[in-house]
Amino acid sequence: MPAVDRTDRSGARERLDAERLLDRLRELGDVGRDGEGRLTRLAASDADRAARDRIVRWLEEDGLEVLIDRVGNLFGVWRVDSEKAPFMTGSHIDTVVDAGIYDGSYGVLAGLAVLGACRDAGVVPDRSMVVAAFTNEEGVRYAPDMMGSLVHAGGLDPDAALATVGVDGTVLGAELERIGYAGPAEPGAIVPSTFVELHVEQGPVLENAAASIGAVSRLQGISWQKVTISGRANHAGTTPIGLRADAGLAAARIITFLRDLVAGSDAVATVGTISFEPNAINVIPATARFTVDLRDPDAEALRDAERALCRFADDVAARDGVAVEIERLARSDPVTFDETIVRRIESAAGRLGHTCRRVTSGAGHDAQMIARIAPAAMIFVPSRGGISHSPGEHTDDDALVAGAEVLLEVALDVVGEAV
Amino acid sequence: MPAVDRTDRSGARERLDAERLLDRLRELGDVGRDGEGRLTRLAASDADRAARDRIVRWLEEDGLEVLIDRVGNLFGVWRVDSEKAPFMTGSHIDTVVDAGIYDGSYGVLAGLAVLGACRDAGVVPDRSMVVAAFTNEEGVRYAPDMMGSLVHAGGLDPDAALATVGVDGTVLGAELERIGYAGPAEPGAIVPSTFVELHVEQGPVLENAAASIGAVSRLQGISWQKVTISGRANHAGTTPIGLRADAGLAAARIITFLRDLVAGSDAVATVGTISFEPNAINVIPATARFTVDLRDPDAEALRDAERALCRFADDVAARDGVAVEIERLARSDPVTFDETIVRRIESAAGRLGHTCRRVTSGAGHDAQMIARIAPAAMIFVPSRGGISHSPGEHTDDDALVAGAEVLLEVALDVVGEAV
Repeated sequence: MPAVDRTDRSGARERLDAERLLDRLRELGDVGRDGEGRLTRLAASDADRAARDRIVRWLEEDGLEVLIDRVGNLFGVWRVDSEKAPFMTGSHIDTVVDAGIYDGSYGVLAGLAVLGACRDAGVVPDRSMVVAAFTNEEGVRYAPDMMGSLVHAGGLDPDAALATVGVDGTVLGAELERIGYAGPAEPGAIVPSTFVELHVEQGPVLENAAASIGAVSRLQGISWQKVTISGRANHAGTTPIGLRADAGLAAARIITFLRDLVAGSDAVATVGTISFEPNAINVIPATARFTVDLRDPDAEALRDAERALCRFADDVAARDGVAVEIERLARSDPVTFDETIVRRIESAAGRLGHTCRRVTSGAGHDAQMIARIAPAAMIFVPSRGGISHSPGEHTDDDALVAGAEVLLEVALDVVGEAV
Repeated sequence: MPAVDRTDRSGARERLDAERLLDRLRELGDVGRDGEGRLTRLAASDADRAARDRIVRWLEEDGLEVLIDRVGNLFGVWRVDSEKAPFMTGSHIDTVVDAGIYDGSYGVLAGLAVLGACRDAGVVPDRSMVVAAFTNEEGVRYAPDMMGSLVHAGGLDPDAALATVGVDGTVLGAELERIGYAGPAEPGAIVPSTFVELHVEQGPVLENAAASIGAVSRLQGISWQKVTISGRANHAGTTPIGLRADAGLAAARIITFLRDLVAGSDAVATVGTISFEPNAINVIPATARFTVDLRDPDAEALRDAERALCRFADDVAARDGVAVEIERLARSDPVTFDETIVRRIESAAGRLGHTCRRVTSGAGHDAQMIARIAPAAMIFVPSRGGISHSPGEHTDDDALVAGAEVLLEVALDVVGEAV
């Protein structure tokens, strides 16, 4: 808690320009629309360039120093002569295909609004304040996702990132050069003392709990696996049940098992893709392939779930006379966010009269990468119907403003600490 | 049982030309191979014409009268001046894509061998003897399958059959004209007193029972249904289990239910095709589509199984918050073959020292159509590994000859009845 209030809290609150935040969100949301009105701003594309140009213009308008690193991470810096590591907030401005306007952009523009409010109110921060827009968070064009923040946190070599070949055959480094956002700075130069990312929830928990603010204390670990079941193709009419090796049935058993496995726990399991071969109405499937998306906020529990899947697959193989092969596609460990920051979020929400709920993020975010090098946490605002990555993504204006207000309070807590 | 033996049984048995039967089977099996050696003789194709030409040549060589009807059904007739309705055997010579050489062709060529043996032995049949090759049994190019025998039995109007548009956009009638097999005879002219179809089993029952001959007493009813489950697409990480409407999970529940439903009964259930939408690793399936192939030799039991599927689908819809729509694609009632003929097959197999087992056909056959207008039954010989509709289809020569011998005995029983 702030021991000395170097900040004019009420002044900053008054100067938080909600209207400009909402206007900029809508304006940025129109950058990258195709002829049919679909919003798509893949990393390092022409649409991304246009959006970056807009952000840079706003950073400059707001009197911030613009800093761009070699992998295109974009920072707006309010530089203060201080020994303390900066306060940083932000997110990303790249999108998925046919996206909504809030995911990522909201965190960047709210960060801008918060820094602007502090400056306009004459706040004297005890450290520099930075708003970040990390490159390629979505990972649609170039894998992996959260690439810019991963590089910033030292988890991926910048040259390796720049050499990434995209799904369209382009190379990220060349595309960043082309759009003019291969900056001069070495990635990772700014190590913050605190990182707070404001984001739409992308899930239905806050809406269902009728809470305005989510204090995100954890982020789920994610395990992606591919399961291939090999049985025997045979005639659907002439092959008695006892003589079948039905790969599709074995797949169905595993899918229902996964639901039973996670029921009543913090974990979630999803089988989102499936295919049978030969995929004929009157032929028993010889092969079934499907993916398993397992998530759990506890690392050990996530490993336990993977092991339980393995054991059950063995049982199914024995029972149904099939072979089951499980291949790991991707894995990220759970993240526990900084408890001090989470409490500051809860406290700020309480002071402002917003209902707040401590939540776990089910999706990946830049904050999980920055958490490797600095205390970090996230603020969520509700997503209507839990919808995201879709034009149907929506958060009410009031909720968007409430989130920015909470971010401002937390920022003031940090930069107003005793000198 | 024959009261007066007008037939020289031992002479006919001696004159059954096994070598010529096997040679013709292999020769016909080379008609319709593509550049890569794959055998494909779709109905009314050039390959079908070449095979029909070969059959016609053999019918003529064997001294039979050739008769072709308007839908291309091809008959070889040993005409006898008798008031009695003819004895008929036969099957079809069209194939699936990348087929084996036995399915269908074996029944036609064994019929030819049986008529030849009778003639060569000087048998004096009490009625005409006919071998049939029905048009488009497989139904690959033109739906429905078993079309020629269905028309012959009066179940489909000849003009409707001829107007059928194929998967390749062709019209059956035009194609039959083109290949020269739109014959002058009105379909259904020959109503037999007895129809016996000899066929490879296409399943593993005989092989597993170590039986040489199957006396086919029944043919399963078949129900094809398409199930469409509608849930809600949502983020795999951020959507709690309790708030999901997972169409894929609901599909998996139904697939495992179907296996439980038929376990220990005479029925079989197969889910051979499936698809999810949007089919993304981290998105809960909004839609799952799959087919259900249900078969049961008992008509009431088949209807019960359909009803049980409907009830369970309702349960799943309520439990998982999804909508389930079930659409009928096709349905054929079970067939009970003529008990007298089945007993004659068993008795003939016994006399010849072949192990025989009474079996149910899981696949559809021309005999089920002819059973609508005449006493009918089938003789099966084992398929190695139960494999059919594949180049891996195989029946040992000994078993092929044994099947022809049993067909000959049954034919002699019929045409040697008391005058």
